[in-house]
Amino acid sequence: MEQLFADGALTVPFGADFFSVAVGVITGAMFACDRKLDIVGTIVLGLMTAYGGGIIRDLLLQDDGVYFMQYPNVILICIGLAVFVFYFRGLFRHSGQVLFFADALSVALFALAGANKAFACGEGFVMVVILGALTSVGGGALRDISVGETPGVFQRSNFYAVAGFGGALVFAAMAFANAPLVLAGCACVFTVVFLRYLSVFYDWKTADEADLTPKVSHGARKAKGVAAELFRRATLHRKKAPTTRTSRFRRR
Amino acid sequence: MEQLFADGALTVPFGADFFSVAVGVITGAMFACDRKLDIVGTIVLGLMTAYGGGIIRDLLLQDDGVYFMQYPNVILICIGLAVFVFYFRGLFRHSGQVLFFADALSVALFALAGANKAFACGEGFVMVVILGALTSVGGGALRDISVGETPGVFQRSNFYAVAGFGGALVFAAMAFANAPLVLAGCACVFTVVFLRYLSVFYDWKTADEADLTPKVSHGARKAKGVAAELFRRATLHRKKAPTTRTSRFRRR
Amino acid sequence: MEQLFADGALTVPFGADFFSVAVGVITGAMFACDRKLDIVGTIVLGLMTAYGGGIIRDLLLQDDGVYFMQYPNVILICIGLAVFVFYFRGLFRHSGQVLFFADALSVALFALAGANKAFACGEGFVMVVILGALTSVGGGALRDISVGETPGVFQRSNFYAVAGFGGALVFAAMAFANAPLVLAGCACVFTVVFLRYLSVFYDWKTADEADLTPKVSHGARKAKGVAAELFRRATLHRKKAPTTRTSRFRRR
Repeated sequence: MEQLFADGALTVPFGADFFSVAVGVITGAMFACDRKLDIVGTIVLGLMTAYGGGIIRDLLLQDDGVYFMQYPNVILICIGLAVFVFYFRGLFRHSGQVLFFADALSVALFALAGANKAFACGEGFVMVVILGALTSVGGGALRDISVGETPGVFQRSNFYAVAGFGGALVFAAMAFANAPLVLAGCACVFTVVFLRYLSVFYDWKTADEADLTPKVSHGARKAKGVAAELFRRATLHRKKAPTTRTSRFRRR
Repeated sequence: MEQLFADGALTVPFGADFFSVAVGVITGAMFACDRKLDIVGTIVLGLMTAYGGGIIRDLLLQDDGVYFMQYPNVILICIGLAVFVFYFRGLFRHSGQVLFFADALSVALFALAGANKAFACGEGFVMVVILGALTSVGGGALRDISVGETPGVFQRSNFYAVAGFGGALVFAAMAFANAPLVLAGCACVFTVVFLRYLSVFYDWKTADEADLTPKVSHGARKAKGVAAELFRRATLHRKKAPTTRTSRFRRR
Repeated sequence: MEQLFADGALTVPFGADFFSVAVGVITGAMFACDRKLDIVGTIVLGLMTAYGGGIIRDLLLQDDGVYFMQYPNVILICIGLAVFVFYFRGLFRHSGQVLFFADALSVALFALAGANKAFACGEGFVMVVILGALTSVGGGALRDISVGETPGVFQRSNFYAVAGFGGALVFAAMAFANAPLVLAGCACVFTVVFLRYLSVFYDWKTADEADLTPKVSHGARKAKGVAAELFRRATLHRKKAPTTRTSRFRRR
């Protein structure tokens, strides 16, 4: 595997990986505390949020190693963090602003880690983007599903998966355009944080209901009317057709 | 892998695979729209319904490739389809009859794809049937679970998993009896569609409550009574036992 | 794989494995019957409870085989068991005490199987413990999640995951201390059953709410007060500082 990663893959600094995992554990553990889960649930949801996206990515990639299994000591620290959140949940209650930025940065780093590993494993453009987006929000989605809730990223909300997707797209575009991977990585992280921040600042939300059918059928009717009108005029012009015929068109 | 599939495996035409995946995306996206999920949820549930069963199968088979990863362009088309369903959901509202048949055919093709790949990977009879049934309904089950619902196939309903199971069983039986795989495949698809159609037509449903214990204990009591009677007569016949003894039997 | 397991791994007797799987199927099928699922749901939840933890473990280990796939005949028996539970659920209604012990023993054997396989695959201490705990309760958690419930092991309850974790910990400690694996295995099973039994007997439960922040901040305030007092006395002792200064300290 080392071989694989050596040629043409960005080595994400260990600190960055650790930061995103740690933030994932904290948000997952806080989520568990909000739902009055016990210490087991808190640890499991913390780990799931932190590692879930990466585990899905690694299972889909097959044979390139599961990140979760590679640094057991990091897991120990994560368990410690989850226990800390469990016993000192009061400390995290008013950490809104700081945690928001930490979380955005964490999602960005996850998107980068996902896209980068997919790229390193020789996947094509589409898969790099998909695995980047999947890694960025997969952990949170798994966490939500495992307490019987519909994942937040599936619902009308500020950009989250969209931000992860955007970042992975930027990374893939630059990586496949042979840009230096460090640059692509920075652009990816910046894009995710920026999109996330803007979407919250301006309260941009994904749509949950959008039926263009009536508009389109209205448009189609209109287009048909216009076409009929044009046809009528053309016909009139050419051979002075009786009005009865065009009125038939209009009535349709 | 090509090697593996070359000897003794049915090459399901690409069009068939694509058809079942496309129908899966459409039903999954409609499911998401019904639950007012946003565009992200619609795309994810569409892909999950289409690819979920196959992903479970491929993860269990280990090392034989994940179908989801092999045709990125198909995924792009699927995402496009999900987006189309999201924006033109009105078009799909009254498509009941057509969609029902498309869905039945899609489930059939999934059962075939699952059973066929398991067979090609050298699995035995039991595993071919199980993986066929799993692939046919696994995607829909994953979709239901991921919005916190109990999967429809786990509940009293017209045959669905049963149809997929039946088709996989027919395929396995014919394949292991050395029938031509094309024939086995056709029989599988036909069985699934037929079972599904019949179960809806005659409103056959799987049972959700069935406790035979009282019946059996009643039957056991009755059997005991009959046995005792027989024993009494035999005894009477042989050595004219006093009635007190047989009445003891009866009172038991 | 046989090779891998030959050197330095405990060969768990097949009967023990089969016992734990069978008990898992029965508890899973009873769970499904309680929720009025149909025969498909009963079989699937039975298999999921029995094999789920092992499947997660095997997917994370990658390339060391999936236990679920290795003994198809055992699966057939399991399906038969689930069907039996479905049709004779009445028999299992009053089996509380027996089933409780069978379940505790089954969880213990799962913890052993998980920890033992991780150890055999050359994982380190942390991973052996984590995979042991995961295998012991993962199946039950998957079962709960797949009907949209928050897993019981995530909630305030008698020790269950904690018992599995304790057993895996004991196994790992002994195995890495080069104790005979048979002994480590027995100690693991004993620990799990003992912890589970004690927790039910004394009604020990995992905490679901524990905020030490107020206590700690109270303690911190107190410590500060004590420190200030000490400092004041020391100061008084040394240079007879005016009281105004110490009162400033206290007010803080």
